[in-house]
Amino acid sequence: MKALIQLHDGYADTQTGPNIDDLSPFLALKDVPVPTPGDVQALIKVHLAAVNPSDIHFIKGEYGQPRVKGMPAGFEAVGEVVAGDTPLKGQRVSFFADASGTWAEYAMTDASRLVPCRPDLAEPDAAGQLVNPLTAIAMFDIVKESGADSFILNAAGSQLGKLLIALGRDHGIEPIAIIRRAEQAQALKDLGAAEVIVTGADDPLGQAQSIFKTLKPRILLDAVGDQFTSDLFFAMPSHARWVNYGKLSTEEPKLTQLGQMIFMGKQIEGFWLTRWMKQVDPARIPEAFSEIQKRFVTGKWTTDVAGIVPLSEAMKKLPEALAKPDGKAFIDPRV
Amino acid sequence: MKALIQLHDGYADTQTGPNIDDLSPFLALKDVPVPTPGDVQALIKVHLAAVNPSDIHFIKGEYGQPRVKGMPAGFEAVGEVVAGDTPLKGQRVSFFADASGTWAEYAMTDASRLVPCRPDLAEPDAAGQLVNPLTAIAMFDIVKESGADSFILNAAGSQLGKLLIALGRDHGIEPIAIIRRAEQAQALKDLGAAEVIVTGADDPLGQAQSIFKTLKPRILLDAVGDQFTSDLFFAMPSHARWVNYGKLSTEEPKLTQLGQMIFMGKQIEGFWLTRWMKQVDPARIPEAFSEIQKRFVTGKWTTDVAGIVPLSEAMKKLPEALAKPDGKAFIDPRV
Repeated sequence: MKALIQLHDGYADTQTGPNIDDLSPFLALKDVPVPTPGDVQALIKVHLAAVNPSDIHFIKGEYGQPRVKGMPAGFEAVGEVVAGDTPLKGQRVSFFADASGTWAEYAMTDASRLVPCRPDLAEPDAAGQLVNPLTAIAMFDIVKESGADSFILNAAGSQLGKLLIALGRDHGIEPIAIIRRAEQAQALKDLGAAEVIVTGADDPLGQAQSIFKTLKPRILLDAVGDQFTSDLFFAMPSHARWVNYGKLSTEEPKLTQLGQMIFMGKQIEGFWLTRWMKQVDPARIPEAFSEIQKRFVTGKWTTDVAGIVPLSEAMKKLPEALAKPDGKAFIDPRV
Repeated sequence: MKALIQLHDGYADTQTGPNIDDLSPFLALKDVPVPTPGDVQALIKVHLAAVNPSDIHFIKGEYGQPRVKGMPAGFEAVGEVVAGDTPLKGQRVSFFADASGTWAEYAMTDASRLVPCRPDLAEPDAAGQLVNPLTAIAMFDIVKESGADSFILNAAGSQLGKLLIALGRDHGIEPIAIIRRAEQAQALKDLGAAEVIVTGADDPLGQAQSIFKTLKPRILLDAVGDQFTSDLFFAMPSHARWVNYGKLSTEEPKLTQLGQMIFMGKQIEGFWLTRWMKQVDPARIPEAFSEIQKRFVTGKWTTDVAGIVPLSEAMKKLPEALAKPDGKAFIDPRV
């Protein structure tokens, strides 16, 4: 089969973020044997594979698990189960590949991790239903538990950001959206953001302070990790929690008012979907997938497609698709 | 009565830490009326008042509650209940003054906050049994809950640090003590510190990393809040918690490896005794005081006295007593 194969093992010593201009230092398109499923594994013929920021972190060696040289890259996809000891053989499933990556004609994973897809779920929605939508649902559970009427999210124009804004809108918890590009502001307001703060604008922190007086957010969902995020956190009311789940910035944020941890009961923590899935009540996961598919099918969520790149041309065309300011890139291994 | 009266209201905009050379910008020795207890209040004739770092933070306007101009300073003391609606009238009590401060001949507080003292409890132990010992017990509960066989504390040569080291020793949880002055190292080892790291020594972080490989501490109890503390935190194993309870340093620590919050489940939080007392199971508090008094009386804890300063001379002599590198300062309002 054709596959985008990793060129390196383990971790790199870099922290360059999820941007990429050139895949060739990390990946190569190669012909490799179709993997053979072992016990409790399933082989899936890939229809469409998602490209997430975590994939780029991973191939660069900057993610929380080590690379394996010679293995196909790609965490997430939709496809048809073609082999393995599972009653889902012949069915369309979304999956997170833990045994052989999804940027390939065939991928392999633990059979217990297959998520059956409703027939009316579109392929791009199905290809990307695990990482972003499940992260959105899981982090929005934290927002709901905070009891506040508002929450903050940065990188709010990302696919995950838009999913979170729509959840806030539908649950009556007002999203405060932080973005870099003013052009995105109106679209996010139309989607349901109560307030939009543009980081490059005049005095964004002052604007935030004034908004926080009314909306009193308790949770800051952070994919950026820069100094402005830290400043926002210290401008938030008592009992605020800074929940970091990504590192788009290479800045090293300073804690300028550490005393707030003591006297205002503030807290800094991280969110990782992998850990959440191990710790959450197991019943929450199928319930979440049912909610995710329903939201896509009924139009409460939409997948913005930046580009669908053929596997055979991905080395060249994937960086172009990823460079688009809006939407999500996919790899189609059938062409 | 004579009292050290606060000269300012509210908060200052400074973050200068708990050191002080001159009290006169903040306090003045004055004659003021003895306070009159209202409902559910008690008036206490002060025997001996403690001087804690939090008192200095407070008079400077750098603590989590606002100053009140014209009120006596001082949070903590031992004395005899002389008026008020309480069955403890005539008895010796330790107390935290919430209505009129302890650096005075008489102090006043909520009658429910009085802690009766065993007759065999020495006056300096009784005067300082609330802030430091209760903080030590409360934070050591966090250490015990972590399940680790070791914990880290900085400012380990402080009175609170010594209480924590003794608790670690007595519960078989090995204390890793961080200090600035190498001269203190042997005394802390004798007290029960498993390891002592001197921050000014050659490669203290390398030393810490090597110690952490064996001892695997989960909790970092931090009264300093500097860059080295942050570096220590990021050198700790998975699920480490940085529990900040003071700010001896004026540095603004950088978060150099924020991704550890995500992938290693690390967390930064604060500890404030005031909040702990509101949130803890109420039965834990009298139990803790019984434990505290027993520990002092049986010699498991000792109070190192840096100096006992007469109230009448405190404006001049208190800074001298506080400048001593070891031990705790007290104010005696009876002389």
